[in-house]
Amino acid sequence: MSGERVSVALFGAGRIGRRHGRTIAFDIPAAELSIVCDVDAEAARQLAADLRCDRWTTDPADVFGDQSIDAVVIGASTSAHAPLITAAAKAGKHAFCEKPIALDLESTDSALRAVSEAGTILQIGFQRRFDKGFAKAKAMIEAGAIGKVESLRESMRDPGPPPPGYLPHSGGLYRDMTIHCFDCLRWLAGEDVSEVFAMGANLVDPIFKELNDIDTSIVSMRFDSGALGVIDNSRRSAFGYDVRTEVFGSEGAILIGYSRDTPLLHLSAEGIVSDHVYWFLERFDEAFIAEMHAFIDSVKRGAPPQVTGADGRAAMALAYAAEASLKSRTPVSPRQF
Amino acid sequence: MSGERVSVALFGAGRIGRRHGRTIAFDIPAAELSIVCDVDAEAARQLAADLRCDRWTTDPADVFGDQSIDAVVIGASTSAHAPLITAAAKAGKHAFCEKPIALDLESTDSALRAVSEAGTILQIGFQRRFDKGFAKAKAMIEAGAIGKVESLRESMRDPGPPPPGYLPHSGGLYRDMTIHCFDCLRWLAGEDVSEVFAMGANLVDPIFKELNDIDTSIVSMRFDSGALGVIDNSRRSAFGYDVRTEVFGSEGAILIGYSRDTPLLHLSAEGIVSDHVYWFLERFDEAFIAEMHAFIDSVKRGAPPQVTGADGRAAMALAYAAEASLKSRTPVSPRQF
Amino acid sequence: MSGERVSVALFGAGRIGRRHGRTIAFDIPAAELSIVCDVDAEAARQLAADLRCDRWTTDPADVFGDQSIDAVVIGASTSAHAPLITAAAKAGKHAFCEKPIALDLESTDSALRAVSEAGTILQIGFQRRFDKGFAKAKAMIEAGAIGKVESLRESMRDPGPPPPGYLPHSGGLYRDMTIHCFDCLRWLAGEDVSEVFAMGANLVDPIFKELNDIDTSIVSMRFDSGALGVIDNSRRSAFGYDVRTEVFGSEGAILIGYSRDTPLLHLSAEGIVSDHVYWFLERFDEAFIAEMHAFIDSVKRGAPPQVTGADGRAAMALAYAAEASLKSRTPVSPRQF
Amino acid sequence: MSGERVSVALFGAGRIGRRHGRTIAFDIPAAELSIVCDVDAEAARQLAADLRCDRWTTDPADVFGDQSIDAVVIGASTSAHAPLITAAAKAGKHAFCEKPIALDLESTDSALRAVSEAGTILQIGFQRRFDKGFAKAKAMIEAGAIGKVESLRESMRDPGPPPPGYLPHSGGLYRDMTIHCFDCLRWLAGEDVSEVFAMGANLVDPIFKELNDIDTSIVSMRFDSGALGVIDNSRRSAFGYDVRTEVFGSEGAILIGYSRDTPLLHLSAEGIVSDHVYWFLERFDEAFIAEMHAFIDSVKRGAPPQVTGADGRAAMALAYAAEASLKSRTPVSPRQF
Repeated sequence: MSGERVSVALFGAGRIGRRHGRTIAFDIPAAELSIVCDVDAEAARQLAADLRCDRWTTDPADVFGDQSIDAVVIGASTSAHAPLITAAAKAGKHAFCEKPIALDLESTDSALRAVSEAGTILQIGFQRRFDKGFAKAKAMIEAGAIGKVESLRESMRDPGPPPPGYLPHSGGLYRDMTIHCFDCLRWLAGEDVSEVFAMGANLVDPIFKELNDIDTSIVSMRFDSGALGVIDNSRRSAFGYDVRTEVFGSEGAILIGYSRDTPLLHLSAEGIVSDHVYWFLERFDEAFIAEMHAFIDSVKRGAPPQVTGADGRAAMALAYAAEASLKSRTPVSPRQF
Repeated sequence: MSGERVSVALFGAGRIGRRHGRTIAFDIPAAELSIVCDVDAEAARQLAADLRCDRWTTDPADVFGDQSIDAVVIGASTSAHAPLITAAAKAGKHAFCEKPIALDLESTDSALRAVSEAGTILQIGFQRRFDKGFAKAKAMIEAGAIGKVESLRESMRDPGPPPPGYLPHSGGLYRDMTIHCFDCLRWLAGEDVSEVFAMGANLVDPIFKELNDIDTSIVSMRFDSGALGVIDNSRRSAFGYDVRTEVFGSEGAILIGYSRDTPLLHLSAEGIVSDHVYWFLERFDEAFIAEMHAFIDSVKRGAPPQVTGADGRAAMALAYAAEASLKSRTPVSPRQF
Repeated sequence: MSGERVSVALFGAGRIGRRHGRTIAFDIPAAELSIVCDVDAEAARQLAADLRCDRWTTDPADVFGDQSIDAVVIGASTSAHAPLITAAAKAGKHAFCEKPIALDLESTDSALRAVSEAGTILQIGFQRRFDKGFAKAKAMIEAGAIGKVESLRESMRDPGPPPPGYLPHSGGLYRDMTIHCFDCLRWLAGEDVSEVFAMGANLVDPIFKELNDIDTSIVSMRFDSGALGVIDNSRRSAFGYDVRTEVFGSEGAILIGYSRDTPLLHLSAEGIVSDHVYWFLERFDEAFIAEMHAFIDSVKRGAPPQVTGADGRAAMALAYAAEASLKSRTPVSPRQF
Repeated sequence: MSGERVSVALFGAGRIGRRHGRTIAFDIPAAELSIVCDVDAEAARQLAADLRCDRWTTDPADVFGDQSIDAVVIGASTSAHAPLITAAAKAGKHAFCEKPIALDLESTDSALRAVSEAGTILQIGFQRRFDKGFAKAKAMIEAGAIGKVESLRESMRDPGPPPPGYLPHSGGLYRDMTIHCFDCLRWLAGEDVSEVFAMGANLVDPIFKELNDIDTSIVSMRFDSGALGVIDNSRRSAFGYDVRTEVFGSEGAILIGYSRDTPLLHLSAEGIVSDHVYWFLERFDEAFIAEMHAFIDSVKRGAPPQVTGADGRAAMALAYAAEASLKSRTPVSPRQF
């Protein structure tokens, strides 16, 4: 490293870029935010000011040509992920990148090759792995608390569809949304998937059908050990953000479950009412901070990241398999991708 | 006993009499319902018919003069409790009696003397002790699951005030309602109370003030070991029947807690809603059955009952102490009563 | 009807027969238990005695030849269901029968034809429909509380595999266990299923593989409206009986969820612990009583039953479809069966 | 104000000072941390460095003599609170001060007089008022969600006693710990207290008795409207930090209740286990941030603070009343203090 602190450049001055920028700038003594880069000059300038950072730019070359910069955090739009990963690798800089690496496996593989050749660290932003609940579940499973894993079950629902303008570039339900579930179950199970069967439907909004996409889905999975998994998704949840994951083993089960927004119950003649977390940024705010700590820690220690590029690729291959199954109406192995 | 089955007479053909009658008639192979007695002939006749019992009467002498009857279950109105307990004892019959034994300690003591002289079994209807939740709590406390008991806390609220006609004969809040809490905390703590301080208020309905009664109360208690307890009561609960009891010990705590009526959650934009148990007969239905099993079992085995006349008296003495404290505005020892 | 009360004969003196017998004998004033029939004379005699019923027999002809008997309750072994339904129909007697009607659709159809020709009432024992939680969920869905149904999700797990001797005659996982889930989702959705895809595994016990059966399964379903459903089952659940059902709609969701056995929490340094219901007889005890009330009520009023023979057949057709899908590894329509 | 941002000096470089310093330095764009002051030079220097603040000192005169400083945040030890409040007022600087203002009412009144004369803003650190759960409860009560408030109930337990060295200077249970409960119930009820009765015990550790202090307590309260309240406290809680508050009204109730640390359930043959929040800094972390935002906002807008010096004094007067009641064994009015 160039200095005592890890010097970090931030790509992307939007919602997620701001979240990561605050963590780097204020929450990690071992890191410092050196420059903010965004195609929108005003956004870059404003975020840099808010984060009390002196430098901002619209030109990635200002980052990649700067020897004092150790690492980059990529929170730009999806299409920029793979090129920035590749450029960072070639410049010898470590990278943290939001999921997905790319919307196709060709670009994914090309970026991963660049990283592999450079020997730099690449961590993918599957933030759930750093959530206290999920992390504790993983640790308990590894410690044998539920015996041998036999089934996994996940529900994930967004409060409502993304903005229409986002959808054509989203990659579709499986690459955009289910990819989080694919990574999560694969990680909790501690093993790979041998086949996938997908059932999809258009129930939420006609736009999904127009885009040849689906908005509701159930994916069944068989893991290498024979364990079974199932993921159900919807682009709509009238009651807010919904992520619930269950792992059943030979000696017990773990439910990573329901989050109230506040620990408050209102009791009246109508019943007992509690609120709930509405949005993923609220649900996973601490996890976004924790994953950045883990990344800086990897960089400082030269240790492998907790979520690798291979993990990002594996989740995308599962999305490919789900899409192929949806089309062929048969189970599909992700290994062919 | 006169026969293979315990032959039981039932006094009282009202709500609680019917509950106990069904248990005796249908749920306990070791018992049989022999006769139903009520001042209201039609009520006695109808209940006997519903319980498939051949005999009914309005005259207690038909019960006490019948040698084949082993035991009586007293679910008549409160003023009849002590006289029936006394008559049963004199006739050599075992008795189960709803709480309270009497609304005053003089009558209580007189009835208990008769039982003591006769050597018959008397069980008092503190049904909570037979509720699965409370019974498990008691067993856990005795097994040391929470270490030494240090504090106890109970909330008990009725959905609404009793009918106005009942109130003048109720004995007031402490003898009518808090008496359940007094028995429960004394039993869970496993020790007696050395002092009581009561604070009362009139907030629910003016009728309580007119009757020189209260409708809202907080009673603080000190137990012999030094442990503290507190009971809060109200004659109104907008959300239904509310009984929650907490026991804190040196190594943990037990909450006997919230009961949903159905295991159903409704999730909507307004929040997550569950229902709750509205009425004590629903909440404690199984306990009413279990206490009758225990009574018949005591009679069959000639064993002491699980809730004694002394327990009934002790709870009433606590009610006396609470009333005295309310008047004197100082802590009062129940030992003087 | 022959008398004021519905006169009922009970077939089967085992666990479920005893449960239904108690309800008929003691809980329903409008019914009377007239005779108990079981191939085991001693079991029939003993159960009749316990239920205070004068008659018992080992010969079904004693039931079917008796004009005074209005209805039969069939809790005998599965292979006897269809013959007894058929005999009851031919004798003009209404019938309540435990699920399944038969383990194959041929026998099912033959029994249903007999009922149809006789014009008698036949109710199938899907007791869940009478559980307070499920019944309330159904009523809420019909009242529009969650808008249009879009997805359904159910987990059902037994504490452990049935006795080895039972398995060869069980009909396999789908006909024996999942059949409850098939009925439940079909009923909650209020519509039929157009296709089914099944994934199964052998993880619990080698005996299932030996019997060419499975012990773990995920079944995806598409309903006629396009709604999706998923059922996951296991023959083992280390933590007790597990039935949780979720229905997601355009405006909300319903979870029929977790049941504690007692409303008790134990708090200690290890965490907060609650217990849970271990076995289906505990979980659904009230539902078994309620379904019998509904049956007697149908018979008295000459009204159609709440769970018809067609419902029983439809659930079995779904089991057939799941089995066919398991074999063909493709989605299968239940309509072909 | 001297500049665009509110310039803030921080007194106290310990645990709570660090928490507030981070908020000022990084989380509030409208504020800037100008200097850190602590009697321990190394602690002041280190905290300033961690917070990327250029100035630190051990001399309060460096703060009070600096015209560019608008406000002070007082997180120093309790005995320094009143002198620093007074000095800040005299220097015309607004102040945020941790509770209590002082351990005695004389010093409290003297400090409040100085603030009153200077016309500066003083906010007291009752952070609970800024917790999402408590804040929502207050808003619901004010909006009439539970009708007229009739009873309030609070449990507050610390995981274990403070370090022995802290105790002699703590002010005792009521001034140190119950003071949070006093403020909270007074605030939720929206009214003052007319009488207090206290019952205390020594059950946790002999040191409390040696110091003439108590470790377990129940305090009953009557509010001006006649509503009743009760607070139970313990210096020990084997299962972690415990704050649960309940407000019962004529039309419903609110429970501000149980917090899991993670939304995770572990199901096994032993039961269903969840974890819980162990420590108040975890439970109220967001509230500490929110109260600082509110303070800076008051300063910027010249608006009265949400928690006033009078609130701080009123809670202390309740502690005095509780102590007097403990001694006199009679109810005591806090109005005499």
